[in-house]
Amino acid sequence: MENFSFYAPTYFEFGKGSEEKTGALVKRFGGSKVLIHYGGGSVVRSGLLDRVKASLDKENITYIELGGVMPNPRSGLVYEGIELCRKENVDFILAVGGGSTIDSSKAIAAGAVYDGDFWDFYEGKPVTKALPIGTVLTIAAAGSEGSPDSVITKEEGMIKRGASGEAYRPRFSVLNPELTQTLPPYQTAAGITDIICHLYERYLTNTKNVETTDRMIEGLILAMVNEGPKVIENPNDYDARANIMWAGMMAHNNSCGVGRSQDWMSHNLEHELSALYDCAHGAGLAVAMPAVFTYALNHDVNRFAKIAVRVWGCQMDYDNPERTAKQGIERLRQFLISIGMPKNFEELGAKEEDIEKLAETACYGNGNTSGTIYGFITVKKEDAIAIYKLMV
Amino acid sequence: MENFSFYAPTYFEFGKGSEEKTGALVKRFGGSKVLIHYGGGSVVRSGLLDRVKASLDKENITYIELGGVMPNPRSGLVYEGIELCRKENVDFILAVGGGSTIDSSKAIAAGAVYDGDFWDFYEGKPVTKALPIGTVLTIAAAGSEGSPDSVITKEEGMIKRGASGEAYRPRFSVLNPELTQTLPPYQTAAGITDIICHLYERYLTNTKNVETTDRMIEGLILAMVNEGPKVIENPNDYDARANIMWAGMMAHNNSCGVGRSQDWMSHNLEHELSALYDCAHGAGLAVAMPAVFTYALNHDVNRFAKIAVRVWGCQMDYDNPERTAKQGIERLRQFLISIGMPKNFEELGAKEEDIEKLAETACYGNGNTSGTIYGFITVKKEDAIAIYKLMV
Repeated sequence: MENFSFYAPTYFEFGKGSEEKTGALVKRFGGSKVLIHYGGGSVVRSGLLDRVKASLDKENITYIELGGVMPNPRSGLVYEGIELCRKENVDFILAVGGGSTIDSSKAIAAGAVYDGDFWDFYEGKPVTKALPIGTVLTIAAAGSEGSPDSVITKEEGMIKRGASGEAYRPRFSVLNPELTQTLPPYQTAAGITDIICHLYERYLTNTKNVETTDRMIEGLILAMVNEGPKVIENPNDYDARANIMWAGMMAHNNSCGVGRSQDWMSHNLEHELSALYDCAHGAGLAVAMPAVFTYALNHDVNRFAKIAVRVWGCQMDYDNPERTAKQGIERLRQFLISIGMPKNFEELGAKEEDIEKLAETACYGNGNTSGTIYGFITVKKEDAIAIYKLMV
Repeated sequence: MENFSFYAPTYFEFGKGSEEKTGALVKRFGGSKVLIHYGGGSVVRSGLLDRVKASLDKENITYIELGGVMPNPRSGLVYEGIELCRKENVDFILAVGGGSTIDSSKAIAAGAVYDGDFWDFYEGKPVTKALPIGTVLTIAAAGSEGSPDSVITKEEGMIKRGASGEAYRPRFSVLNPELTQTLPPYQTAAGITDIICHLYERYLTNTKNVETTDRMIEGLILAMVNEGPKVIENPNDYDARANIMWAGMMAHNNSCGVGRSQDWMSHNLEHELSALYDCAHGAGLAVAMPAVFTYALNHDVNRFAKIAVRVWGCQMDYDNPERTAKQGIERLRQFLISIGMPKNFEELGAKEEDIEKLAETACYGNGNTSGTIYGFITVKKEDAIAIYKLMV
């Protein structure tokens, strides 16, 4: 196991009606003038925004609002939020929504207390300072409610990049599974796919002898394989929603990813898909994962065989572990299809003729002059092309 | 799933040589005058205490010392520590040792800023305020390095009781698996047993549909079953030590225990054993667990069958799930014996003629006028007697 630091000081209020505690939590964590940041109209229509405001009113906390966050959140709105925070002396950012809203809130929180362009953080500058952030989560997926990460898309060139830093961990997150019951099945499934991918990205490691985190990851994927179909069948299954919501946080707060190298190749290659086609991130991952894993299979057949046996219930073929390993990837693919995810470029709305461009941006974007993406395996442009072709 | 709050803001510095960062961490978390609290001579002899002091010196942090913590830490030393803290204006408690040292440190931290008797907290008063605590852990076992709990024994009557509260979560914990490599095999095994028991205490729940936390618990026990024998065979297996150390923290920081009722019957009945015979807590648990589980078996056969299949590799006997459930308990017992733990009263140094007294104290101690212990099953004195008899 490698040396590591781990610090996840987010307070979680979990359960039915928990959004009513938002005001008290903002107060506890030092907020007095809040920017409420959210996406489209669903948090308005559902009455959630009103309930959150009422709980702020109860604590005499003042607030301003900024809606309009889109999936794959854009830098334009971030700049707008930063300006607003400065003008109005905001001291706390409250995200009401999913991963996109939380990620946008994080970018605003960092930019508001930074003299330069917030995009610097998305070009590699570590985030060391930001306004405190709280979240009221409406979809189990990105894990941003408990993570130090944020992903933003720059309109100019549609470049999608991540930033990370301790200051990005929310001070609190309100997790009420009821709020996810009204999600359309496609979004629910995309969220489950994102959670599973966060687990695979950590599972695919070159660090040996990391059984504790391996077992935690396997356990969380197994839970998703059990709970996922329940909510597709019955969107109002509260307990299944709750299991998925807690797993979504655990999958990405990194307690099961510490001390080991990680992959993130599926995310790297998917980012270009959702940046170019504006597809749901989880849907892009559903198409990317089996391709990435198939391409990487021979790098460590036994690791893929292990997850095939332990998670996907395959029998170990001791004479031909590769067969078991492949079977595991196939069962993952079939599972994702079964919950309604796309299986290839066509279903995703991606185009084969863009592959050259996708691979070029994936390998050389973000000022990456080496043209190389490092992870479980090392990917250069020709590898990226081959992997994208497997998605067709 | 039940509603819950979860807050675990402990900073973990994990890995080889991590104790060298102790001084910087004390500084980061606001300490300037430290009480270093430790147990016997091993942290002195090994040079660990000197390395910790050197790292404090480097940051110009002043400190005083209080050694002498015993296993099953006593209130006498706690009172001494509290007085010392007040006299010397200590503003940070640094525990260098295992669960006993950390628990004793927590009690001192709470008592030092409390006007009354610190024992009030161990009679049910919630701990809301305490001096900040840091730890340098030397044994993977109690999980106190990441938990809000502390257990202290009052000399008068040898009463062993727990206290809990947010203020008891350490600000930081230094986890260097190397420091555990010099532990005698018996202590190592007792630590592994404690970790496994923390997981079982959470697994035995009356809350339905908690698959995510079930799977996390199963995964962590599976990891202990794999890694435990490695360190008994080769005490210097760093990776195995590291896996056990991280699992020990995860097993008890409650991220796998949220939203579900828990048991704690093995701990409740064991506390009387280690209070009376001063045996190792883990060794007492090794004797207690199979007895408690056997007695509780028919309360929920399927839950015991589930862990038998998923963790202990039993085949499910669909015609007779009770057979599978029993087999799982037997495999747990055999595993604990295989790593060197005692299997019964005799090996533990306990006496059958004390059972009446043990059951009486377990059920009526701590001012419990109901004579009832609540958990996965409800235990009254006659049940406690029957369970202790199963340990003989």
